[in-house]
Amino acid sequence: MKPFILDPEEMKRLLAVSRGDTPADLVLRGGQLVNVLTGEIYPAEVAIYGGRIAGVAERDGTYKGNTIVELGGEFIAPGFIDAHVHLESSMVLPAEFANAVLPRGTTSVVSDPHEIANVHGLDGIRFMLKASEGLPLRVFVMLSSCVPATDMETSGARLGVGDLASLLDHPRVLGIAEMMNYPGVVNGVDDMVQKAALGHTAGLRVDGHVPLVRGLPLQAYASAGISSDHESVSAPEALEKLRSGFQVLIREGSTARNLDALLPIVNERTARFCSFATDDRQPDDLETQGHIDYIIRKATAQGLDPVLAIQLATINTARHFGLDDLGAIAPGYHADLVTFKDLRDLHVTRTFAGGQLVAQDGQVAARATNTVMPPINNMLVPDLTEASFRIPATGSHARVIQALPEQIVTRSMPVEVRVQDGEVVADTQRDILKIAVIERHKRTGNIGLGLVSGFSLRAGALASSIAHDSHNLVVVGVTSEDMMLAARTVADMGGGICAVSGGQVLGKLPLTVAGLMSDQPLEHVATEMRRLLQASMSLGCTLANPYMAMAFLALPVIPELKLTDMGLVDVMRFAICPLFLTADEVAAIPTR
Amino acid sequence: MKPFILDPEEMKRLLAVSRGDTPADLVLRGGQLVNVLTGEIYPAEVAIYGGRIAGVAERDGTYKGNTIVELGGEFIAPGFIDAHVHLESSMVLPAEFANAVLPRGTTSVVSDPHEIANVHGLDGIRFMLKASEGLPLRVFVMLSSCVPATDMETSGARLGVGDLASLLDHPRVLGIAEMMNYPGVVNGVDDMVQKAALGHTAGLRVDGHVPLVRGLPLQAYASAGISSDHESVSAPEALEKLRSGFQVLIREGSTARNLDALLPIVNERTARFCSFATDDRQPDDLETQGHIDYIIRKATAQGLDPVLAIQLATINTARHFGLDDLGAIAPGYHADLVTFKDLRDLHVTRTFAGGQLVAQDGQVAARATNTVMPPINNMLVPDLTEASFRIPATGSHARVIQALPEQIVTRSMPVEVRVQDGEVVADTQRDILKIAVIERHKRTGNIGLGLVSGFSLRAGALASSIAHDSHNLVVVGVTSEDMMLAARTVADMGGGICAVSGGQVLGKLPLTVAGLMSDQPLEHVATEMRRLLQASMSLGCTLANPYMAMAFLALPVIPELKLTDMGLVDVMRFAICPLFLTADEVAAIPTR
Repeated sequence: MKPFILDPEEMKRLLAVSRGDTPADLVLRGGQLVNVLTGEIYPAEVAIYGGRIAGVAERDGTYKGNTIVELGGEFIAPGFIDAHVHLESSMVLPAEFANAVLPRGTTSVVSDPHEIANVHGLDGIRFMLKASEGLPLRVFVMLSSCVPATDMETSGARLGVGDLASLLDHPRVLGIAEMMNYPGVVNGVDDMVQKAALGHTAGLRVDGHVPLVRGLPLQAYASAGISSDHESVSAPEALEKLRSGFQVLIREGSTARNLDALLPIVNERTARFCSFATDDRQPDDLETQGHIDYIIRKATAQGLDPVLAIQLATINTARHFGLDDLGAIAPGYHADLVTFKDLRDLHVTRTFAGGQLVAQDGQVAARATNTVMPPINNMLVPDLTEASFRIPATGSHARVIQALPEQIVTRSMPVEVRVQDGEVVADTQRDILKIAVIERHKRTGNIGLGLVSGFSLRAGALASSIAHDSHNLVVVGVTSEDMMLAARTVADMGGGICAVSGGQVLGKLPLTVAGLMSDQPLEHVATEMRRLLQASMSLGCTLANPYMAMAFLALPVIPELKLTDMGLVDVMRFAICPLFLTADEVAAIPTR
Repeated sequence: MKPFILDPEEMKRLLAVSRGDTPADLVLRGGQLVNVLTGEIYPAEVAIYGGRIAGVAERDGTYKGNTIVELGGEFIAPGFIDAHVHLESSMVLPAEFANAVLPRGTTSVVSDPHEIANVHGLDGIRFMLKASEGLPLRVFVMLSSCVPATDMETSGARLGVGDLASLLDHPRVLGIAEMMNYPGVVNGVDDMVQKAALGHTAGLRVDGHVPLVRGLPLQAYASAGISSDHESVSAPEALEKLRSGFQVLIREGSTARNLDALLPIVNERTARFCSFATDDRQPDDLETQGHIDYIIRKATAQGLDPVLAIQLATINTARHFGLDDLGAIAPGYHADLVTFKDLRDLHVTRTFAGGQLVAQDGQVAARATNTVMPPINNMLVPDLTEASFRIPATGSHARVIQALPEQIVTRSMPVEVRVQDGEVVADTQRDILKIAVIERHKRTGNIGLGLVSGFSLRAGALASSIAHDSHNLVVVGVTSEDMMLAARTVADMGGGICAVSGGQVLGKLPLTVAGLMSDQPLEHVATEMRRLLQASMSLGCTLANPYMAMAFLALPVIPELKLTDMGLVDVMRFAICPLFLTADEVAAIPTR
C-alpha cells in the first residue's frame, strides 16, 4: 500500500474546506457522478481543494468555491489508469505521452520502463522517473525484472536484485515489473525468486507475464506471490488466472488486442479483479483511436455495463496496486477526474489532474515539455561495409524466419537458398530477404545474419533501433548496399527508423533517446511513421507495419525462430542454431 | 500493504510442491471450493505445504500429499476474519479467545486493544501482541488512537503520537484504530490529524468511528484519509459512507447489532467494500451463538447470497487491510480455511490455520494456553469506608442517570431525592439507586457519586472493573454498606465483577488481567457470568445484563448523562455538571 500522504497542516486546510468553513479552489456543479465505489450514478457536486477531492454533495450549492464549473448534466468519473504500459512504445518522451493521453482521460499509468532499461539499465529507469516528475500525468513505475531477457543476445545492461533494490523506495515505484522469465519462476531459479521476494518484503506488488501458462505451472507461478497477468488470450485462460488469485489485466494495445476474447469473463462478481491495460501503444493508434478511453468505448459497445468498464479503468487498478487515494471520486482522493457526455460512447470533454483542468475538448491546457537530459546516446555500431552483410553460402538450405501478419510469433521455414558468387543473396521472387541484427551497446562488433520471409520488399532496405528486448539495430533488405546505407543512416541519427532504396534515403525518423524515443511531439512522430510506412509500401512491402514486425524479430523469448546479434535462435530449443541445415536435416525436409 | 513474506528457500520448496515435483504436506480432496475471487463454487482439491496453499486443481488426484483428507463433498472456504473486535470484551485472554472462535471458523481478527490500553497504555498493547504471538488464530492489531477518550475521567494511560509510532513497525500492526474523537478529526485538532498522518505515512490503514455522522462532517472525516467505519445503524447512513469511500464494517456483536438494518445495502456491486465485524462479543454469545459464522448464518438466512456473505467475512476484509495473502484459497495464500456441509446454514466442521487442522466438530485440536505474564495488576482503589459512598444532601433535586434496556445511551432525569439524616439515599420504590465510580489507576482517591435508575435492585450492590473507556471501578447499589463490600470485593480480587447483598458476596468473577480479563477458559467465564446474572436477578434486577449496562455508565462520549471518577458528565454539553439542580433549574422542571 503506497501511503496516502498529506502534510498535517495541509490536511487541516482540506478539512476546513470539506466541512464547509472555507471555500474550495474549484467546485464542479451539475454533473452526474459515476461512483465507482458503489456502482451508482447520481447527480452530485464535487469540491476540490489543494489537488484533492474535499467533498461530494448531492445538492448543488452545498460547497462554495473560488471557481465554479457548470457541467450541465455531463457525467463525471475518476481519471483513467493504464495498469501496464511500456511508455517507450509510444516513441515519445513521458511529457509528450502525457500531452497525448490526458485529453483522452488517462491521468495515471503503471509503466514498466523495460525498453530503456535494456539499453541504459538503471540510468534508463532513473531517466524515466525524472522525465515524468511533476507531469500532470501520474507515472508509476514497476522495476523491470528481466534485463536482459536471455543470454542469447547482447543488451545494454543487466539488472540484478541489488540494482532493483536501489530504486524500491522511490515514491512512484509500485513494485517489480512483469516476471517474463516464467520458467525461471516456476522452477525456482535464484534470480527470479529473489526478485519476487524483494518486492514482497517491501510490501509491493510483483507483476506477472505468463502467456498460455495454465495448470500446475500456473499454480507454481502464483505461489511465488505474483499477483497480476496481462498475457491472457482466451477466456478460459483468463478465468483460470482469476481463480488462481491474479488481477487479470485485459490488454488492448497496438501489438496485442485481447479485449474481444476476454470480455466474456467480466461480470458483476469478477470485475473487481480485472483491469484495463495497453502494454504497447503506437503513436498512430494513440492519435487515431485513443488510449484507455478507446478500450472503455469498445468494451461498452460490446455490451459491458459502462460503470463496470469504468471500474476496470479506475478503482480496480488503483486498489490492486495499493493506490488508496486514486481511482474514485471521494473525499481525500486525488482530484483526477474526467467529464463526458455519453455513457455508452465515452468521449472525454475535460480532464482534471490534481484538481487542475489539464485538457478540454481534445486539447491539453498547457503542453508539457521535457527538460530532463536523457542518458548519453551511444550507438556503438561497428564500422559497416557491404561485407558486413554478406552471407557466405556454406550450405544449400537455410532456416528462414517467416514473419506472420499481425503476429509476433514466427515460423521456421527450411528453404533452398539463392547463391551468387559463393554468397547467399535475397530472392525477391520467393520473398526471401536478408536480415541483420547489429549489436549497438558494447562495441562487440557482433552482427547476426539471416534470412526472412513475409516482408515482400522488392528493393531497398528498412532499419530500426527498436528491436525487443535488447534493442540492437535490426535491418531487413534486398541488397547489402542498401542494408549498409539503412544501418548507417540509423547509426548516424543516434537511433531511429529509416527506409532506403537504391542508395537513397526515402524516409527517416530520429529516435535519439536510447534509440527508442523521439524528442518531438507525438503528432510529429505519428506523421513521420505514416511517411515511413508509405515508403515501405512503395518498396513493395505487404506488412501493415513492417517496423513493428522487425521490432519483434530479435526477441528470442517468442517462438519460433528469431535472430539476435549472436545469431539465429531456435526458441523452441531455447538455443542458438546455425543458419544452414546439415545434410541430414536437408534430407529430412518433407517433400510436398 | 503488509508484505507477503516467504524466505526465498522456503519459496523454492513451495514452488516444487506447486508444480507437482514434490508431495504436499496435506491434500484436501473431494471438496466444493468456494472461490471468493470469482464468486464461483466448483469441485477442487487443495494442496498445502509449509502453511501455504501450494495449488488448487480441479481434478482430484492431481497433487500427491503426505496426508490426504477426504472432504466427501463438503464445502471448503477461506477462514473467517473479524474486521474489528476488542478482544477484551470476551473477558478472556487471546489464547482462550482463539480456543473459542477457531471451532467457529474464525482464523484472523483485526483487533483494537483499546480497553487494556486505557488501563496499561503501551504495556497493555504489547501484552496483547505477545499474548497472541504464535497462536493458530492470527491476531492483527490496530493501535488505539483515543486513550483516554476524554479529559473528564482518569485513565490508566495516555497514548500520544510518539507512543503509537513506536509500535507501527510490528508485523501484525495494521494501522491506527478507530478515530473515535470524530469532532477532533473533523475540526482538524492536532492530535487527531497527526495520528491519522502517522498511519498514512506508514502506508497503513486508519480506522474510523463515526456514529450517525453524515453530510459535510462525514466528508471532512473521510478527507482525513480514514477508510473504514463500523458504527452505521441505518442503511442510508451506511450507503452514504460507502459512497464516501469507507469500507463499511457491518457490526453484529453483543452490544450493538446492525446486521438487519444494514443488509439492504449489500449487493453484487457494493459487497466488495463491505465486511463483517463484531466490535464486542461477550462470552455467553460466543458460546451459544458463535462469532463471524453466526453473522454469515444470519445474513444468509435473511437472503444474502452465501458466497457474498463469505466474501464479507474473508477477501473483502483482507484486501481492505492490505493482507494480500489472506482471505482466499489460491496459491501462495496462507492455508487458513474451513469446511462445512450446508451453504445456507453454515456450521463449520473443520478449521485449518496455517495448514494445520486446528479444530474439528466444535472442538480445538489442541487448547492454546497463555504463557505470557500480564502487566502488573494495580487496582489502586483508595481505602473505602461507608462514608466513601455517602452523598450529602445539598439540594432537593438531582440529575439521575436513566439506564435504558439494551442501549448504551442514557437519559438525564431530574428527580426529587430521598433524604435521611442529611444524606441522599436510594429509593427502591422509585427505582433510584446510588452509583459510584472509583478511580483505580493512579491512587487519586477520586470517587464520583451519583444516582441511577433502571436497574430495579431491591437490595444489595453490583460492582465491576469493566467500565468503558477508563475502566474505573463502577458500583451500583442500594446501601453504602453493600456498595463498600462490593467495591472491596472487586478490589481484593485485583479486578472483576461481583454481586453482594446484606453483607454477603452472592457471586464473583475475578478478572485479574487489567481488571478486564480472566485467566480462565471462556466456558468458565461464561458459566460464572450466568451465575452473576442470576444473583442480580435475585436482587430484583430487571436489566438483562446489568454488568454490561454498568460498563457503559462511565463512558462520557455516549449521550446523555454519565458518571466518571471526576463526577457527573453532561455529554450533550461535553462538561462536568453538578449532581444537584439549582433552584432555578428545579423551578424549570416541567410539571406533569
